[in-house]
Amino acid sequence: MFNFSYQNPTRIVFGEGQISQLATLVPKGAKVLLTYGGGSIKHNGVYQQVLQALAGFEVVEFSGIEPNPSFETLLKAVELVKAENITYLLPVGGGSVVDGTKFIAAAALFEGDPWDILAKKAPVTQAMPLGCVLTLPATGTESNGNSVVTRYSTQEKLSFASPLVYPQFAVLDPTVTFSLPPKQVANGVVDAFVHVMEQYMTYPVNAAVQDRFAEGLLLTLIEQGPLALKDPQNYDIRANVMWAATMALNGLIGQGVPQDWATHMIGHELTALYGLDHAQTLAIVLPALLQQQRSQKRAKLIQYGQRVFNLQHSDEERLIDETIAHTRAFFEQMGVPTRMADYGIKADAVDALVAKLEQHRMFKLGEHGDITIDVSRQILTAAL
Amino acid sequence: MFNFSYQNPTRIVFGEGQISQLATLVPKGAKVLLTYGGGSIKHNGVYQQVLQALAGFEVVEFSGIEPNPSFETLLKAVELVKAENITYLLPVGGGSVVDGTKFIAAAALFEGDPWDILAKKAPVTQAMPLGCVLTLPATGTESNGNSVVTRYSTQEKLSFASPLVYPQFAVLDPTVTFSLPPKQVANGVVDAFVHVMEQYMTYPVNAAVQDRFAEGLLLTLIEQGPLALKDPQNYDIRANVMWAATMALNGLIGQGVPQDWATHMIGHELTALYGLDHAQTLAIVLPALLQQQRSQKRAKLIQYGQRVFNLQHSDEERLIDETIAHTRAFFEQMGVPTRMADYGIKADAVDALVAKLEQHRMFKLGEHGDITIDVSRQILTAAL
Repeated sequence: MFNFSYQNPTRIVFGEGQISQLATLVPKGAKVLLTYGGGSIKHNGVYQQVLQALAGFEVVEFSGIEPNPSFETLLKAVELVKAENITYLLPVGGGSVVDGTKFIAAAALFEGDPWDILAKKAPVTQAMPLGCVLTLPATGTESNGNSVVTRYSTQEKLSFASPLVYPQFAVLDPTVTFSLPPKQVANGVVDAFVHVMEQYMTYPVNAAVQDRFAEGLLLTLIEQGPLALKDPQNYDIRANVMWAATMALNGLIGQGVPQDWATHMIGHELTALYGLDHAQTLAIVLPALLQQQRSQKRAKLIQYGQRVFNLQHSDEERLIDETIAHTRAFFEQMGVPTRMADYGIKADAVDALVAKLEQHRMFKLGEHGDITIDVSRQILTAAL
Repeated sequence: MFNFSYQNPTRIVFGEGQISQLATLVPKGAKVLLTYGGGSIKHNGVYQQVLQALAGFEVVEFSGIEPNPSFETLLKAVELVKAENITYLLPVGGGSVVDGTKFIAAAALFEGDPWDILAKKAPVTQAMPLGCVLTLPATGTESNGNSVVTRYSTQEKLSFASPLVYPQFAVLDPTVTFSLPPKQVANGVVDAFVHVMEQYMTYPVNAAVQDRFAEGLLLTLIEQGPLALKDPQNYDIRANVMWAATMALNGLIGQGVPQDWATHMIGHELTALYGLDHAQTLAIVLPALLQQQRSQKRAKLIQYGQRVFNLQHSDEERLIDETIAHTRAFFEQMGVPTRMADYGIKADAVDALVAKLEQHRMFKLGEHGDITIDVSRQILTAAL
């Protein structure tokens, strides 16, 4: 096991009816910027619940944060924060709204061009406080310090991380997910699943607890994900998916172990160039990557196959083949296709994607740093 | 799943050599009270590492905190805190030293008789800040707000809890556990195991993540505990035991699920009256309690037997019998006997223990509140 230092300051307020807790969770006297996306929160009752809980606060609204939040839109929110002397940020939505609002929190107090936070990894030395209400379990952003933002003008999807942008609290009410479109439910489950895989499917360092927890989340998502599609009004199933997605990327399972993240880095280019949903890109890249990296990941692929899919073949090559096939089948079962062709993307895309990876200097991806541009090309070709 | 609100503010600083981080973890300018137990930290190098890291601080020492820390001793430390104008507490030791120092933190700022914190559950409204260096993985106290203190004069073992006494940081260096006596290693593993069971072995509420995490910790302790006894200098094994013990009682796996704790409550009386180690009392009480509560805990006993011990009998009564037998066998394998007779405690003890349970008003223990004094008597009789 590697050394680590871990602290997660986010208070999780979990359960039906908990949006009302905003009345005490938001600091007294705060002037709140309520940020959200396309307005779905106005149709499922969340917006009304939030405003009711915030009756004692001055609230300004900023809507229109896109899926894959855009740098351009977020800068408008930063202007509003300054013009209105906002003191607290409250994103209400899915991962994009929370990620985008983390960027607002950092950019509002950043001296210089905020693009540098993303493009030059300029250090974030201060940020506005924020808490969130999550409506879509998927990214884990409700309880971590990560944010991904896309500059639409240049099709660049980039990230930053800072302990200063952890939400102070995250309200997770599973009932608000009842009305999600099945596609978003499926995407969320696949996203959470791949988050676990990025921290688990590397090489063994004898980290028993981390491995068992990661496997527990994978087992949960494999079991509960399809049930959430079948029985969308079932509270416990929704609660299990929601809690699994938070635990998948609140940092805990990644402590003291190697991490990969090549699937995410390659996938980001698919979103930036072709507009695919984040989870769709992960479902495309991961199976191809596991196949290409099967010797480097051999020991963990076998462990994963045995413990998560209960495969018991003595022939290890066959076990690995079936393990990868089961992974692909799970994504397909969730309704997320796993080939670029399924999205109408053809072979000529590989060159364009590789060029973007080069532009973003993704020369040494993966836990060994051995996924070179050429290896990424092989993975993308295998994913066609 | 039940609703919950969870936050764990403790920073975990994990790994070999991390005691040196105290230099930056302890707030600048603090006047530190270094608390410890019988002095074993002077023989294994920990004391020297701590003092070296604290070279820039004024440090006062308080030693002699007992296993099952005594109210009487801790009050002396409170006097020292006041006399020396201490501003920060640094327990260095096992669960007793940390638990005891949490009580010092609360008692030093308590207005009135500090005994009320334990005996009358008087609310703790302020407490001194503390951070800790853990030398014995077992209780999880390094990352929670709980404390158990014994008043020696009256043989009363009582607890209190407050978010104000979470350690701000916990330094966990597995190498400092290399020199632990095997008995303490075994006790620690049994203690952590039963902490998980208290939060897991109740009735199902369809909390998939919590169940998988609990099972993951049980599997880890069953696998790594015996290895730690066999191969005491193996870093990864020690690291796995240490991290499992922290995760067992940092609150995470107990969120949103029913909890039991009857084994602890009954066990406390065995320690108070007969001086048994805490873990010994748990190893005695738990198997007898599982047998007595087998119908109330039926569904979870079956799940536990299948997922943790890989038992697959179609005869569920046999499966439950073997599950309880495996639990007892694991404690015995760790060298912790599971019968009162093994410790020279005879049948006449039952009346004395029951009288203590009555005195402490333990009338309705367990997740259903159905472990009455009479049921406790049955459990104790079965544990003879």
